[in-house]
Amino acid sequence: MIIILKSGVSEEQINHVIERVESLGLKAHLSRGTHRTIIGVIGDKSQLLPSRFQAIPGVADVISVLPSYKLASTDAHPDPSVVDISGVKIGGGHLGMIAGPCAVESAERMDAIAESVRAAGANILRGGAFKPRTSPYAYQGMGEEGLKILRDTGAKYGMPVVTEVMDPRRVEMVERYADMIQIGARNMQNFVLLTEVGQTRKPVLLKRGMSATIVDLLMSAEYILSQGNPNVVLCERGVKGFDSATRNLFDVAAVPACKGLSHLPIIVDPSHATGRPDLIPACALAGVAAGADGVHIEVHNCPEDAMSDGPQALLPEQYQKLAGQIRDLATLFGKTISPAPGSSR
Amino acid sequence: MIIILKSGVSEEQINHVIERVESLGLKAHLSRGTHRTIIGVIGDKSQLLPSRFQAIPGVADVISVLPSYKLASTDAHPDPSVVDISGVKIGGGHLGMIAGPCAVESAERMDAIAESVRAAGANILRGGAFKPRTSPYAYQGMGEEGLKILRDTGAKYGMPVVTEVMDPRRVEMVERYADMIQIGARNMQNFVLLTEVGQTRKPVLLKRGMSATIVDLLMSAEYILSQGNPNVVLCERGVKGFDSATRNLFDVAAVPACKGLSHLPIIVDPSHATGRPDLIPACALAGVAAGADGVHIEVHNCPEDAMSDGPQALLPEQYQKLAGQIRDLATLFGKTISPAPGSSR
Amino acid sequence: MIIILKSGVSEEQINHVIERVESLGLKAHLSRGTHRTIIGVIGDKSQLLPSRFQAIPGVADVISVLPSYKLASTDAHPDPSVVDISGVKIGGGHLGMIAGPCAVESAERMDAIAESVRAAGANILRGGAFKPRTSPYAYQGMGEEGLKILRDTGAKYGMPVVTEVMDPRRVEMVERYADMIQIGARNMQNFVLLTEVGQTRKPVLLKRGMSATIVDLLMSAEYILSQGNPNVVLCERGVKGFDSATRNLFDVAAVPACKGLSHLPIIVDPSHATGRPDLIPACALAGVAAGADGVHIEVHNCPEDAMSDGPQALLPEQYQKLAGQIRDLATLFGKTISPAPGSSR
Amino acid sequence: MIIILKSGVSEEQINHVIERVESLGLKAHLSRGTHRTIIGVIGDKSQLLPSRFQAIPGVADVISVLPSYKLASTDAHPDPSVVDISGVKIGGGHLGMIAGPCAVESAERMDAIAESVRAAGANILRGGAFKPRTSPYAYQGMGEEGLKILRDTGAKYGMPVVTEVMDPRRVEMVERYADMIQIGARNMQNFVLLTEVGQTRKPVLLKRGMSATIVDLLMSAEYILSQGNPNVVLCERGVKGFDSATRNLFDVAAVPACKGLSHLPIIVDPSHATGRPDLIPACALAGVAAGADGVHIEVHNCPEDAMSDGPQALLPEQYQKLAGQIRDLATLFGKTISPAPGSSR
Repeated sequence: MIIILKSGVSEEQINHVIERVESLGLKAHLSRGTHRTIIGVIGDKSQLLPSRFQAIPGVADVISVLPSYKLASTDAHPDPSVVDISGVKIGGGHLGMIAGPCAVESAERMDAIAESVRAAGANILRGGAFKPRTSPYAYQGMGEEGLKILRDTGAKYGMPVVTEVMDPRRVEMVERYADMIQIGARNMQNFVLLTEVGQTRKPVLLKRGMSATIVDLLMSAEYILSQGNPNVVLCERGVKGFDSATRNLFDVAAVPACKGLSHLPIIVDPSHATGRPDLIPACALAGVAAGADGVHIEVHNCPEDAMSDGPQALLPEQYQKLAGQIRDLATLFGKTISPAPGSSR
Repeated sequence: MIIILKSGVSEEQINHVIERVESLGLKAHLSRGTHRTIIGVIGDKSQLLPSRFQAIPGVADVISVLPSYKLASTDAHPDPSVVDISGVKIGGGHLGMIAGPCAVESAERMDAIAESVRAAGANILRGGAFKPRTSPYAYQGMGEEGLKILRDTGAKYGMPVVTEVMDPRRVEMVERYADMIQIGARNMQNFVLLTEVGQTRKPVLLKRGMSATIVDLLMSAEYILSQGNPNVVLCERGVKGFDSATRNLFDVAAVPACKGLSHLPIIVDPSHATGRPDLIPACALAGVAAGADGVHIEVHNCPEDAMSDGPQALLPEQYQKLAGQIRDLATLFGKTISPAPGSSR
Repeated sequence: MIIILKSGVSEEQINHVIERVESLGLKAHLSRGTHRTIIGVIGDKSQLLPSRFQAIPGVADVISVLPSYKLASTDAHPDPSVVDISGVKIGGGHLGMIAGPCAVESAERMDAIAESVRAAGANILRGGAFKPRTSPYAYQGMGEEGLKILRDTGAKYGMPVVTEVMDPRRVEMVERYADMIQIGARNMQNFVLLTEVGQTRKPVLLKRGMSATIVDLLMSAEYILSQGNPNVVLCERGVKGFDSATRNLFDVAAVPACKGLSHLPIIVDPSHATGRPDLIPACALAGVAAGADGVHIEVHNCPEDAMSDGPQALLPEQYQKLAGQIRDLATLFGKTISPAPGSSR
Repeated sequence: MIIILKSGVSEEQINHVIERVESLGLKAHLSRGTHRTIIGVIGDKSQLLPSRFQAIPGVADVISVLPSYKLASTDAHPDPSVVDISGVKIGGGHLGMIAGPCAVESAERMDAIAESVRAAGANILRGGAFKPRTSPYAYQGMGEEGLKILRDTGAKYGMPVVTEVMDPRRVEMVERYADMIQIGARNMQNFVLLTEVGQTRKPVLLKRGMSATIVDLLMSAEYILSQGNPNVVLCERGVKGFDSATRNLFDVAAVPACKGLSHLPIIVDPSHATGRPDLIPACALAGVAAGADGVHIEVHNCPEDAMSDGPQALLPEQYQKLAGQIRDLATLFGKTISPAPGSSR
C-alpha cells in the first residue's frame, strides 16, 4: 500500500501517519520527493482497510498495490479452473453452450425448446422459475412448479439445468432441482444471497451487475469462494451505457481482462447484453473469439407468446445456425465442447 | 401504446398485429404515413407487456405513452406525500435531517455522535448494523447488538432511527428496532426484499441504485407501494460515472425530475454521492436548492478510526456548520424542519 | 413523426398543434386513446425539426419514425459500400489491415515498423504527424516533415497511408500526402472539419467519438457524404465507461448495429478501445468475428521509446501472430484481404 | 511519480527501470514491499510522459502525484481568479448572469429577448451565429450577420456579448464582435481551436465536453492559458449519462471539485445540462448553492418558432422569476452580481 501525502503536509502530520501505520504492526517507508512525500506500507496488509488511512489528516491518496480478492486471483490458482456441471465442463478450453427460454412457461413449451437446442448442440438447459422483473405487475415466474418442469425436461434430454435464485430462503429448494444456480445481474452485490450459495457446493453462474467493475465482479465471486464453494463461472452480460440503441453495452474486453486477473471461467450472454436478436449472433461470435468459455443464449419457439423478454430470444433455427458457427470457431481456436451427458442421467 | 411498423411491412403482417391487439380486448387505430405505418392501441393497457408486441414480425418499435408505475405517479396522488417517521415529517415542505455514522460501532461512539448531530439540528439518527461490503473480508457490522445500541441512543436523544436491512429474513428484526428501514443502493432491485418491506407499514428509505434510471427507481418504489406500504422516501445518492474524481456522479436533476413524475418525497445523500468531505457541503446545499425534501449525511467524530467509510464522513463541527446553512436555505425557500421529537418518546 | 400530447391537454391546444402542422404543408392525423391523444404527422418530413413541435404547449413528446441521416442509410444504398484506398478495398467482404505507429517519429523508425507490418500482412500504413494531445506540453507530432516520411515509407513498401488531420486549414496539405484522411474521435463532431474533408474525394476514416451514439456517428458521416464525398469508413474505437480497468469500453455490438442501419464499412480499433496490449488481440479477433470490415492496430518496435501512446502498442512479433489469426478468421467467414498494392505504386 | 512493478519482476528489469529513470536526469528511490516493489521518481518531472515508463517491461502501473496542468492549478495561483468581461466580473464572489437565445435569428427577436433578460437582471447577452448541429441539414446560424446583430443589440442594452466560435479561421472575426468567446462542448478537445483563442486576450467561456473528466477540462483550459490568455471561465453543462429522462447528466459536484483544483471561475449551464425547462430553474439554483460563479440560461420569447433548441429555452417571465431567486441566493451566500455596464458603452 502506498500513502501519498498532500503538498504542504506538516512533519507532525507525517509522524502521525507513521505512528498509525506502525500501531497496526506494519512498517512505514518514507520517501520525500521534490513536490510530494509518499509512505510505502510494508507488511501483511490483508486485513487493512485503505479507508482507515485515507481519513488521516494530510493524506491525499491511498493506493493499494495488491488486489482485494485472493481466492479468485491467478496468484491463488495460476491455472484456469474447470467447473463441472453434472458432466459438462466449462473453462480450461471447454466451452459451455447454455440455451433455453427466459422463463419456464409450461412443460410442453419447455420440451419443444429443449429438444431444439439439444439438437443444435447446446449442452446445458436454462429456464427461469423466479423472474426478477422491474415491474411488480409483470409476470413473476412459475415458482417451484417451474423448477420441476425444468428438471424433468433436462432429465429427458440429458442436459444439466441452470436456473436463477433470488431469495436466500429458496437456495435450498433451487439447489434440489438445479445443476447450476444462477445469480442474476441485479443480485451481483446481494451479499446475503452470495453467502448463501457459497455454502452450497453447486456450480454458480455469477452474472456481472450492470454497473459493476471487473474488480467488483471478482469481489462478488470472492464472497462465494470464501464460503468454500469453488465452482464459480463468471458471466459478462452487458453494462449500462449511454446509447439506447442497444439494451446494454456488451463489454467484450471484460473476457480477456478477467482472464488476466482470475482463474475462473467466464462466459458471455449476448441475449441480455444487446436485447436485440439481430445483434446476438455477432456478439456471441465476438465473445468466443475473445476467449470466452461459453455462450448463454435465450431461445424461444414463439417469441410473441413469451411471458418475458420475448423480443430478445432467438428462434430455434437461428440458434441452430449460430451454434454451428460457434463450433467452427471453437475448432479454429482449439476449444472443445462437452456433449450433453445424455438421457441416462 | 403506439406500435411503429417497419418500412416494407406487408398487409398480412399489419393484419396479424391488429388481430393480436384485438385478441387482447383492445382497439387498434391504424395510421398510414408517407414512409411508415403506425398503430395506436386504445384501451386499458395496464396489464399489457409492450414486449409481447415488440416480438411480432414487422414491428419496428413499441412506445408506451403511460408510465408503468401507477401508485407512485402524480396521476394517482397529485399532492406531494408527507411521510411521518415517528413524529418527524419528510415531504410536502418538510425537510428531513438524517445524520449519524456509517456503522454503529459501540454505544459510547454512537452516543457522542448522536449528541453532536442532535445539537446541530439533525432530526433522524442513522447507523448501520448490517453493512453491505464489496469485500467479504471487510467489517460486516455489529448485527442485532448494533440495532439495540441504535434504538437506545435514539431514545435517549429523542430521535427516530433509520438503519439498513439486507436480508429478507431479518426484516422483522429490523422493524422491531427501527423507525425507518433503509434499502441500500445495491438492493434497489432486490425485489424479494422490496416485497418484504412492502408488507410492513414502516417508512422505507429507498436509495437509488448506481445504474438505475429514474423510472427504475419509481418502479422499485411501486413494488413497496403495491404491497400496501405507502410510506416511501426516495433518495438520490449518486450514479455511476466515468470520472473517478468523485466516487459517484451526484444527479441533482433527479430531484426535480422525480417531483414531476411522483408524489413521493425525495432526499439527497451527498456522502455516498461524492465520497469526499470537501464536496459534501456544496452538494448538500445544491440538493436543498433543487427542492430535495431532506439531506442524509454521514458524521463521525474520528474518521480515521471508523470501521467503514471513514473518509467520506463529516466531522461534527463540519456538520454543525452545514446544518446551519441548510436551515438558512430552508427559510429562504419556505421549508420547515421538524424538531427531533424529544427524549420523552 | 408522432406527436404525443400531455394528459389533460385542451381542445384549444390540440387545435393549435394541428394548425402548426398544417401551416408547414403537412397532414395531421388525430388519434384519441383512453388516456392520451396522439397526432401522426404525414408528409415529407425531411426538413422538419422535431424540436419545433416539442416546444408547443401541450406536447409531451415528439417521436421521429425516420432516421435523420439519409445518404448514410441502407434506404439510400441497400448494398454494402466498398471503399477503395489506392487499391486496397474495405467493405463488402474486404478486410482492411491498418497498422503502424501512433506517431511518425523518424524515417528510420517508420521504415522498420512498416517493413515488419507489411511482412505480417498489413495492407495500409498508419502514422500520425499532427497529434491531438490532452496536454499542451505533450509531444505534438512532426508536422509536414512527418507527412513526407509517411508518404515515402508507404511508397517504398507499396502501402497506401492514412494519417489524421485536426485543422481545417491543413486538409489540403494532408490530402496531398495521404491516401486516406483520419478524423479522430475528439473531432467526430468538429463539423467544420467534417465539411472540409467532405469537399475532398479522399477516403475518410471517421472514428467514433467517446460519447457518441451510433446515430451521432452516422450523422457525422452524413456531413461528409452530403458534401459529395462518398468514401467514408467508420471506426469503433471504444466509448467512455465507468471501469478504469480498460482505457475505454470497446463497443463491439456497434459493428452489427451500424451494419443494420448503414451501408458504410466499419472497422475496429482495439488499440485505442482498450489501451492495453494484453487485451488488444482478443478484441481485434472479437471485432472480426462480429463482422468488422477491418482492424486498426498500433505497432511500435520499441514502446518505451515511443513519443506517444507507447504502452498501448503491440510489438511487431505480437502483431505478426495476431495478423495470422485474423487471416484464419477471415477465411472462416469468407472474407478477403487485399494485398498491399506493392512498391510499384 | 511512482512506478509500481509487477509481482515477479526480475532484478534485471528493476535495474533497467532505474537506468531509464536516471538517464532522464531523475533520481529513483527503490522500496521493496512484502509483495510488490515500487520506485519513487524524484526530480522535476514536468516534461516526463508517464507513458514512457508504463511501456517498460516489468512495470505494472505508473502513478502521477502531481497534476498535469500547471497554470490552471491552485498551486500556480492560490486565490480565485476574477475574469472581467468588458466590465462584468465573474469569479471571486462575482456572479455572471448570462442569458439570451440559442441562436441569433433576427434583429427584432434579439432586441426583444435582450430587453427582457436585461430587465430581469442578466448582465451578459448570449446568442449563436455559428451553430454546431448534429445534422448537416439543420439550421447552421446567420454567420457574420448574426454577429453584427448580437454586437449592436448588446451595445443598445449595455451588455457585453458572448458567442461561439467553431472554426479557427473565424476566431479573428468573432473576436472583433464579441466580448467573450465561447468554446462549445463538442470542441473542448479541439486543440487547434483552443490554441487559436489562447492567442487572443479575449475572455473565453470553455464548456466541458460531454465525456470529459474534470482533469480533461482543466487540461483544455491549460491549452488556452499556456498561449498567454489568462481569461478563462469554465462551464459545467452536463455529461453523458445512461438515463434518457434528462438530455445530459448535470454534474453539480464538478463545481466544488474544480474549485479545489483550480483558481479559474466556473459557471453552470442548466439549459444544456438538462434540456428541459421544467428542470432548469432547480438546477440553476443548485449550481449557485454549490458555489458556481455564474449561470448561463437560454431564453426565447417564442420557443415554438426558435430555429434551434427551442424546447430547452425558458420564457422571459420564467427567467425573470428564476433571476430573482438567484439574487436571493447570492445575497444569502454573500455574492455580488455586477450590473450590466449600461448603454453608454
